Amino acid sequence: MPVLRFDRTTRDWVIFAPSRVRRPHEFRKDGAPAVAESGEPPCPFCPGHESLTPPEIFAVRSNGRPNEPGWTVRVIPNKFPALRIEETPQRIEDEPGFQHLGGCGAHEVIIESPDHVALAEQPIDQIESVLRTLKLRFDDLMRDSRFLTIVIFENHGERAGTSLRHPHFQLIATPVVPRLLRTRHAIATDYFDLTGKSLYGEMLELELDAEKRILAANDRFVAFLPYASHVPFETWILPREAQPSFGRTRPESFRPLAELLATVLNKLRVGLDDPDFNLTINSSARGDEDAPYFVWHVAILPRFATPAGFELGSGMSINTVMPEEAAEFLREVEP
Amino acid sequence: MPVLRFDRTTRDWVIFAPSRVRRPHEFRKDGAPAVAESGEPPCPFCPGHESLTPPEIFAVRSNGRPNEPGWTVRVIPNKFPALRIEETPQRIEDEPGFQHLGGCGAHEVIIESPDHVALAEQPIDQIESVLRTLKLRFDDLMRDSRFLTIVIFENHGERAGTSLRHPHFQLIATPVVPRLLRTRHAIATDYFDLTGKSLYGEMLELELDAEKRILAANDRFVAFLPYASHVPFETWILPREAQPSFGRTRPESFRPLAELLATVLNKLRVGLDDPDFNLTINSSARGDEDAPYFVWHVAILPRFATPAGFELGSGMSINTVMPEEAAEFLREVEP
Repeated sequence: MPVLRFDRTTRDWVIFAPSRVRRPHEFRKDGAPAVAESGEPPCPFCPGHESLTPPEIFAVRSNGRPNEPGWTVRVIPNKFPALRIEETPQRIEDEPGFQHLGGCGAHEVIIESPDHVALAEQPIDQIESVLRTLKLRFDDLMRDSRFLTIVIFENHGERAGTSLRHPHFQLIATPVVPRLLRTRHAIATDYFDLTGKSLYGEMLELELDAEKRILAANDRFVAFLPYASHVPFETWILPREAQPSFGRTRPESFRPLAELLATVLNKLRVGLDDPDFNLTINSSARGDEDAPYFVWHVAILPRFATPAGFELGSGMSINTVMPEEAAEFLREVEP
Repeated sequence: MPVLRFDRTTRDWVIFAPSRVRRPHEFRKDGAPAVAESGEPPCPFCPGHESLTPPEIFAVRSNGRPNEPGWTVRVIPNKFPALRIEETPQRIEDEPGFQHLGGCGAHEVIIESPDHVALAEQPIDQIESVLRTLKLRFDDLMRDSRFLTIVIFENHGERAGTSLRHPHFQLIATPVVPRLLRTRHAIATDYFDLTGKSLYGEMLELELDAEKRILAANDRFVAFLPYASHVPFETWILPREAQPSFGRTRPESFRPLAELLATVLNKLRVGLDDPDFNLTINSSARGDEDAPYFVWHVAILPRFATPAGFELGSGMSINTVMPEEAAEFLREVEP
């Protein structure tokens, strides 16, 4: 039964997911269970193996019945969920001074296609269909008022923490607002109060004026490498029309988003030889969906370096590539 | 020339260390320079190879001249520094809206012993000598008023980001206060304002009362696995006498600290088969050395899991082991 515990020193909530627990002795190198041979048959995410996963929540399919082949995008509950819909987000004092919250939430897997082809190499139609599915699941889960934040992410490659090679997004709905989101929202709100301007809107304008960190753009979205990128080749895709929540994305925006995402992912794939990366969709929390301060965006974080003691102890990043140089390099790459 | 850039969306400073830069094309898997065969001869940290490192800043030695064998602990500047003492911490506007700070700071390496034996397996005298050296360097660097924070850390093992196998601590002095430290300090101060109590002092008392997460203790220090540990087997060593700054540690405390650190590290080493870990010494920033809110401490963070998209997107951690179980397991281990 998952729970969340409150770290009083940083005000972070930590998820404890004992359904994923190994016993302490299994952490020994000699006792650790081998990582699943990801991608080797039987891959539970491949068509024909639907019975190896929990029953599907949603699927884009032209034929076949639920949990049968015929789908092109398939959404299932994570078999080893970090949080579960059955729990109650009740605060309980374990012992004097220590409180936890029931591990209420949702943890879904969005299988991007029937085959083992990375999102970058899918047809634009398929990428658009995946993005529309993410939005659909986002909207559906936001109807449950217990969920305050929905984190959408993809882990591409082993260094990015993936455990199954069949390309998939994940989505975790949490019953708390993570401190990082609170911080981002407070900073953007504060900036508005101080200056009357939108922090993200201004940043986008400044980046467009400066030009040198812009990677690609279309009518609705701009892809750039932020001035203070935390990791080499960090790339953001920001909508030109400021919206705090991914859930407010207009239907007609998914096509241009899919096109720009394909361009960015393929530049990274071709230019850097298919690097491992995490992709996250950063969106506002419940209640802030219409507060005009934060702007939702896609962040792609390649995983070339391992954060070590300095990063963990200080929270600061050390980046070894100037984003201007990285952008110049990637702009030249023909996907 | 290193610089720091300000991330306006999170108020983090990011260090850009171009002396460590690889050219963008070298990030390709096929073009990346191989990681140095760490520990293979010639190891630049071994006695007799002193000329392979920059000249020493300090050494504990019974014989020999500087930069010659005869030392038992040796401090040198990092050959590839993240920040450099020669820079000026001046704020400069690069372009409208984007400001950087000169990459002023210090980056030192503390070689723990002449041999390739991990700290855990060193005699207590040697561990004490290393800790006293860290304190000495901390105090010396704090005399330079440009440095606001000193981060002390060790990376043990490849998954913890180490690049050279010869055991060593590192120390980075920064010309800014990292947001994480600001947050911790503000939370502890706020707690004092709200309750009149010390957050860390109270936490220590509550942990001692609860008992089940205590790993070991002596007259001056307590080792425990925090209630809201962010990673499996995370262990803290907290002084019983509350002091915000590592620089305020009393001379007579280093022996008991060395003893408790040896116990903890050996329990982890024997119980978990020499896991990779980061060790950090968390201390207050300049100006807060005597503010009675934060308490300096050692944090040991084993690296069993890779933070992935959820952790990067939300800032939250998913931990798969309850600290009570981890503590029970480690208490039984005879080092």
